Amino acid sequence: MDLETSRGEGRRSRRRRDKRKEASAQSKTRSQHAYRQLRNPYPPVAQLSEDQIEAIHRASLTVLEEIGIKVLLPEAREIFAAAGADVDEAAQVVRLDRALVMESIKSAPSKITLTARNPERTVEIGGNAVTFATVGGTPNVTDLQGGRRPGSFADFCALLKLAQTYDVIHLLGPATEPQEIDPRFRGLDMSYAQLTLSDKIPFVYSRGRESVADAFEMIRIAHGVSEQAFPTQCFCKTVVNVNSPLQLDVSMALGIIDFARCGQLCIVTPFTLAGAMAPVSLAGALTQQNAEALAGIALSQMTQPGAPVAYGGFTSNVDMRSGAPAFGTPEYAKAAFASGQLARRYRLAWRSSNVNASNAPDAQAAYESQMSLWSALFGGANVINHGAGWLEGGLTASYEKFVIDIEMLQMFAELFEPLSCEDAELGLDAMREVGHGGHFFGAAHTLERYQNAFYEPLVSDWQNHGAWLEAGGEDAAKRAHNIWKQALAEFEPPPMAEDTREELDAFVKKRKAEGGAAPPE
Amino acid sequence: MDLETSRGEGRRSRRRRDKRKEASAQSKTRSQHAYRQLRNPYPPVAQLSEDQIEAIHRASLTVLEEIGIKVLLPEAREIFAAAGADVDEAAQVVRLDRALVMESIKSAPSKITLTARNPERTVEIGGNAVTFATVGGTPNVTDLQGGRRPGSFADFCALLKLAQTYDVIHLLGPATEPQEIDPRFRGLDMSYAQLTLSDKIPFVYSRGRESVADAFEMIRIAHGVSEQAFPTQCFCKTVVNVNSPLQLDVSMALGIIDFARCGQLCIVTPFTLAGAMAPVSLAGALTQQNAEALAGIALSQMTQPGAPVAYGGFTSNVDMRSGAPAFGTPEYAKAAFASGQLARRYRLAWRSSNVNASNAPDAQAAYESQMSLWSALFGGANVINHGAGWLEGGLTASYEKFVIDIEMLQMFAELFEPLSCEDAELGLDAMREVGHGGHFFGAAHTLERYQNAFYEPLVSDWQNHGAWLEAGGEDAAKRAHNIWKQALAEFEPPPMAEDTREELDAFVKKRKAEGGAAPPE
Repeated sequence: MDLETSRGEGRRSRRRRDKRKEASAQSKTRSQHAYRQLRNPYPPVAQLSEDQIEAIHRASLTVLEEIGIKVLLPEAREIFAAAGADVDEAAQVVRLDRALVMESIKSAPSKITLTARNPERTVEIGGNAVTFATVGGTPNVTDLQGGRRPGSFADFCALLKLAQTYDVIHLLGPATEPQEIDPRFRGLDMSYAQLTLSDKIPFVYSRGRESVADAFEMIRIAHGVSEQAFPTQCFCKTVVNVNSPLQLDVSMALGIIDFARCGQLCIVTPFTLAGAMAPVSLAGALTQQNAEALAGIALSQMTQPGAPVAYGGFTSNVDMRSGAPAFGTPEYAKAAFASGQLARRYRLAWRSSNVNASNAPDAQAAYESQMSLWSALFGGANVINHGAGWLEGGLTASYEKFVIDIEMLQMFAELFEPLSCEDAELGLDAMREVGHGGHFFGAAHTLERYQNAFYEPLVSDWQNHGAWLEAGGEDAAKRAHNIWKQALAEFEPPPMAEDTREELDAFVKKRKAEGGAAPPE
Repeated sequence: MDLETSRGEGRRSRRRRDKRKEASAQSKTRSQHAYRQLRNPYPPVAQLSEDQIEAIHRASLTVLEEIGIKVLLPEAREIFAAAGADVDEAAQVVRLDRALVMESIKSAPSKITLTARNPERTVEIGGNAVTFATVGGTPNVTDLQGGRRPGSFADFCALLKLAQTYDVIHLLGPATEPQEIDPRFRGLDMSYAQLTLSDKIPFVYSRGRESVADAFEMIRIAHGVSEQAFPTQCFCKTVVNVNSPLQLDVSMALGIIDFARCGQLCIVTPFTLAGAMAPVSLAGALTQQNAEALAGIALSQMTQPGAPVAYGGFTSNVDMRSGAPAFGTPEYAKAAFASGQLARRYRLAWRSSNVNASNAPDAQAAYESQMSLWSALFGGANVINHGAGWLEGGLTASYEKFVIDIEMLQMFAELFEPLSCEDAELGLDAMREVGHGGHFFGAAHTLERYQNAFYEPLVSDWQNHGAWLEAGGEDAAKRAHNIWKQALAEFEPPPMAEDTREELDAFVKKRKAEGGAAPPE
């Protein structure tokens, strides 16, 4: 394969394209395409046979029937009991008859519209719709210049700005934990930042009733809707993690209940690491995941039939030598494919993740992330949480990984675009024009199409080795560093009406004066 | 998600597993599983509708009928003419009637057995069988210590040893070009090294009739088969690149003919970079690829009906700003999926690649490679050429990328393993034993399975950040560097009977004394 020759051709025709180059080099931080409501055209890959899916389904119902789920919140146990579950109050264990589970989850919607305050950012979840969220909840952040450190509010805001910058991000994740802020005020500041620095779908932590109520009120103000209208549309999302195995703690159960009552999206995600918090066999971990997800979704629907809810899958494995969690492994990919099948078994939207266990934004981070993304997206995922920025198995948000992830997500967004085989695209005239052994750089067919023919990368550097070295010889992580710095320097917040902002300010001021939100019990 | 907790659990139970750790740390260069004949259980992803595939099929037959292919070798034009093609001798252009093309390729086999001198290394190509080959033909090599330099025979041999070390490599690629060896002797030395340092399927360059005959003779000697028996089994492979657009040069045409006559595998791979050597539209590039591949395969079958042959796809795009080739792009992935469909349209085995355009073994190298691998493997590829070591769009073989690629290939090999949903794997007893909020590290179900439950990585480091930093804080590339050095230090060549080796030695000595192989015209 004579690549030198092809590069030579490139060099010869480069002069002609100088103008183009100048134009598109103006901002390296943006992309040429809008990546709003993505649709995945590929039918989902099946990991398991229908019989195998039914085996997991039946076993998970047996788990709920025989072992049950421990529910620490009395109010949640009351809702379960009222719906007909067998509740052992002394043990705090709820056992659910298989028919009750299936009857309860029937009301869960298959498609959910998430309404953003900028209508262009409104997205659908379910079917073949795909949405990407940023990383969430890391205790630490890292970047090549500043090193690894505890997450701060400045980092939370910087990562929000990056989330707002890139069209391929549809949903805000809670990025990193602003550790210096008193937990009683943290939710207020996080909601305020999300609503003023971005016009995309905000994330709300399920950290107690007061905190959730504050967030809902701020979102209501930002959208300018009435208290009556608020529960009729879905404006935000939370994630409820089951404390695997088979336990739902107080704030998580409260989250399910409060989000259901207010019509906001709750993604129930068991954290089933095979070999640690779930059986070492993948089928066992999937069975437990399914039981836990169905229990949470049942609670949501028992609270409010039709409440927006999604099936979260997070099954991975640990390193059996050290107990360390692993992500983006072959086992992770199989579990992702199977989780998609399970979610579709119940006609639920499915949430997966873009995860890895690397300590640096290096080749490992990229190949583990790709394993996660391909298995999620070709498994038919509707929501990819931790879509950009996750490193170290979620203990750190990396600025450089964030940008590298944006590149990867944009590549999938492009992959989802159809490939036209219309007559003119088959190129017969171009081949007639060029003939044998020539090249297509100057062909009419090329000139008509070159500007939008191909995805233009954000991070990838395709220069030859000499030119790359001359330009500094920076690897992908270093280039990503330059890109996020430039993106932050260029950032402009989305517009917000002055009176809306004043109302938000006043609300935050008032709630802080009242002492903020009580921490979860 | 409380990962700190799960890591804490890990630490507590680490002591128990110390013995295991020692055992499996003995050699970091080997894997716990054998990755011999791989089978891909996933049905291939379709990029195009059947109508679209037929549109490309018909357009490519129109190309061969109307524009034709320029064939520089008179002998090849004679074969085409004898089969009924329209040959314009003055222009050296062969035009093939669509019926003639379809009739000619009918005899091509769908499955090919590649027989290795070690029967355990014999592999099948076609159907759902998957084989991985190492990088081939790079002018340069690079490693973190030695830097970038022209390929040498020492590098060729070192990369061969790595190819022999890892079970997941089934086919030898020609690695890097031993540039210091006189081209007349190069083929002899390369064949000798392949046959003595490895017992896997060798690669033979189509670089002139004499050179190919020498390689066949050496392979015959290594296998200990008679001259009569040699053409009845397939022992090696070559790749014939069409000089896109629509031109077949002398040595490539000779390769097709000689491999067909001797029953050895020829993979016909057009090099169709959309926008450079092929139309800028993907459908156009695929149409040209298909025309070129079918022309080459037709020549093979006209020479010897039933000769082993495979359909190679290499369609990618260039950066329209610089003309630089790009690999592992969204366009590349779509073209890969479509190429698999085209190959299956003709019931042919399909060859794809593991490629990227990065200048370093970094995140870009990994995510572009993953895009290539997923689209190839989930597109149903039977042969992945350049499976390990390719960097810089093929201009360099990287030792570190080689090891990183081995990790990625092994992860796919594991992904291909079935997921059992037998009763015992559903883990009900384990969940009953552990109950609510506990952990599975010590469960009987875990202890019975932990040793082979999960893929053990080669390069990936899943330690927490502190432990990783304490151990040197090396990124994936640096860890890969240590691994290949250790693998080379531990290398032992496969056994070969003394008289076989003597016969090979004598042959090489004789051929060198005769002046080696004439260079291709």
